Amino acid sequence: KTIAVLPGDGIGKEVAGGAVSVLQAIGERFGHQFTFTYGSIGGGAIDALGTPLPEETIELCKKSDAVLLGAVGGPKWETLPGHLRPEKGLLRIRKELNLYANLRPVSYYAATAENSPLRPEVIEGADMLVVRELTGGLYFGKPSERTKTDGEDSVVDTLFYKKSEIERIIRLAFELAENRSKKVTSVDKANVLESSRVWRETAEEVAKDFPEVKLEHMLVDNAAMQLIKNPKQFDVLVTENMFGDILSDEASVLTGSLGMLPSASISSDGAHLYEPIHGSAPDIEGKNIANPVAMILSAAMMLRTSFGLEEEAAAVEKAVEQVLESGSKTSDIAKKGQPTVGTAEMIEEIKATILDNQA
Amino acid sequence: KTIAVLPGDGIGKEVAGGAVSVLQAIGERFGHQFTFTYGSIGGGAIDALGTPLPEETIELCKKSDAVLLGAVGGPKWETLPGHLRPEKGLLRIRKELNLYANLRPVSYYAATAENSPLRPEVIEGADMLVVRELTGGLYFGKPSERTKTDGEDSVVDTLFYKKSEIERIIRLAFELAENRSKKVTSVDKANVLESSRVWRETAEEVAKDFPEVKLEHMLVDNAAMQLIKNPKQFDVLVTENMFGDILSDEASVLTGSLGMLPSASISSDGAHLYEPIHGSAPDIEGKNIANPVAMILSAAMMLRTSFGLEEEAAAVEKAVEQVLESGSKTSDIAKKGQPTVGTAEMIEEIKATILDNQA
Ligand SMILES: CC(C)[C@H](C(=O)O)[C@@H](O)C(=O)O
Ligand SMILES: CC(C)[C@H](C(=O)O)[C@@H](O)C(=O)O
Repeated sequence: KTIAVLPGDGIGKEVAGGAVSVLQAIGERFGHQFTFTYGSIGGGAIDALGTPLPEETIELCKKSDAVLLGAVGGPKWETLPGHLRPEKGLLRIRKELNLYANLRPVSYYAATAENSPLRPEVIEGADMLVVRELTGGLYFGKPSERTKTDGEDSVVDTLFYKKSEIERIIRLAFELAENRSKKVTSVDKANVLESSRVWRETAEEVAKDFPEVKLEHMLVDNAAMQLIKNPKQFDVLVTENMFGDILSDEASVLTGSLGMLPSASISSDGAHLYEPIHGSAPDIEGKNIANPVAMILSAAMMLRTSFGLEEEAAAVEKAVEQVLESGSKTSDIAKKGQPTVGTAEMIEEIKATILDNQA
Repeated sequence: KTIAVLPGDGIGKEVAGGAVSVLQAIGERFGHQFTFTYGSIGGGAIDALGTPLPEETIELCKKSDAVLLGAVGGPKWETLPGHLRPEKGLLRIRKELNLYANLRPVSYYAATAENSPLRPEVIEGADMLVVRELTGGLYFGKPSERTKTDGEDSVVDTLFYKKSEIERIIRLAFELAENRSKKVTSVDKANVLESSRVWRETAEEVAKDFPEVKLEHMLVDNAAMQLIKNPKQFDVLVTENMFGDILSDEASVLTGSLGMLPSASISSDGAHLYEPIHGSAPDIEGKNIANPVAMILSAAMMLRTSFGLEEEAAAVEKAVEQVLESGSKTSDIAKKGQPTVGTAEMIEEIKATILDNQA
């Protein structure tokens, strides 16, 4: 299996290395051969090649079986003109690889629950999957520009969807719900937006093909409340790009384990991409304190989703859990006053646990 | 002073009556004459007059000094075609009265903190004001329609702002911050949307006129996280219409006191409108269990903002606090197992306390 590795900026470089070495341990234990090829994206690519997403990187991803991405961005590139920003690389790779769906599982971890801003009884046992549309909506609609209206300066952005794009993501959400608790919450703003009314109708249509899955509609403002008030009510939450950006980030802080949450971006026709939910965290770059777990669990998602290696994926997840339960935690998830381990040590422990579990 | 009262649907009718009787107590105690005239809006107006916002109601509001609104909507009207939905009345009154800014103070109440899904230490002392743009953006931009693209069904909504509309709301946020903790957090999605880049630039420009107020920019996805992780960092949060819809609802559940939160919608050229944040709650309509505090505190905001009656506004707020501290609570904010009071009793107690405090 060929894997494109795009470490990116900041702690992306530190955690991407962790995923690679964990995958090597998996290869060793289960007798697989993974080939890693590195590509540049984000700020580093701007510095080296003058663009946040070089053609070589796109080519590399297209001919690989899966893509692992660290994180992009940092203060150094924040003052560049829009088309030269690191996040443009992220947006463009989504389009180039047709990554139409971003999947973010948010689960309760007893080992990190104390870091949650929510009361324990509110989050205990929460287990949801946020499915965000990733290549449409306000992010890519045209026009997106400054204009004059009645002689006045004005500006316009466009929320555009083909019905087929809406159908595709909702269908994926239903398929995923079939293997979970069989409930889909479709989030929209159907009392205001025409696009949301089409979204809601499409959800009703798709639901007919999944009689055993329960469909519920929820307005986005209410969803923002319900995620905090009662996160346990959600199984699969599916929504459009901008709502998904907001709600998936909101959901990611509920369990106090932002540094542990992986994501998968699903391509309609090629390699899927896996990345941690957290950003490049330039403030802690190079300090050996970043939590590598989100990236490592993203690699586990890759094993399962891109390669169908369920046992191998479970082996990674189990090792992560064992290491956390043994008390080894990076500073972001450790209790105040407790000892912490560094990024490199955490990676080593997970790797060693994977190999130990074989015996 | 003439006040238009639009009770609306569901519990709107119960709580609007409470605001009126509390204002009468204030009139009695401080020697003011308030004249109340009633108008219809929402589902009731659809039933009676075939439209969610009758012309008479618009006229009434335009010639009044302030407007009190209960809440609109209910299952009865949910299957009507879009232009006949109760919420269309809400959207239209915003446009007709030029209610360009929605102000939502979110404060920590010790008396209700136990109902918050957040840990006490996270919310204790939180005190923010969410300022939402209310007459622009995706809510009103054209086109908003179904189309064909390359022969395929598609749909478009439009996020449109004049720069002057952006400037107006940001300026208001700064003015409000001057009388608070002098910090404005401007929320946008400047890494993706052109409208957000104009928003951000405009915020920088306006900030120059308020050297003593600190301006901070925050991306909307990050804001959705920060509201939960560390709500105390916010003083005035200002954002565009759709982001504001989502974030203000998210903020409203942080303190566990949704039934107590008031709002003011500021007109650029006429009467301001005051309403509770909660909806019409048709499931509890007529049961005498709705919490009237949000509506009563909205009336207090009216006294202060529309009429400059600071002492009178404070008298309402103080009475509410005293009643809550005496242990009288409606079921939504009572501790489990504690006795509760009904809507009517709560209103009576607040009214009596206002009059008692005079002596
Ligand atoms: C960096 C930014 C463009 C991006 C987005 O908004 O999609 C990020 O917030 C994310 O969620 O991956
Ligand atoms: C009912 C709906 C149209 C309205 C809005 O989205 O503005 C409501 O959610 C609100 O926040 O007042």
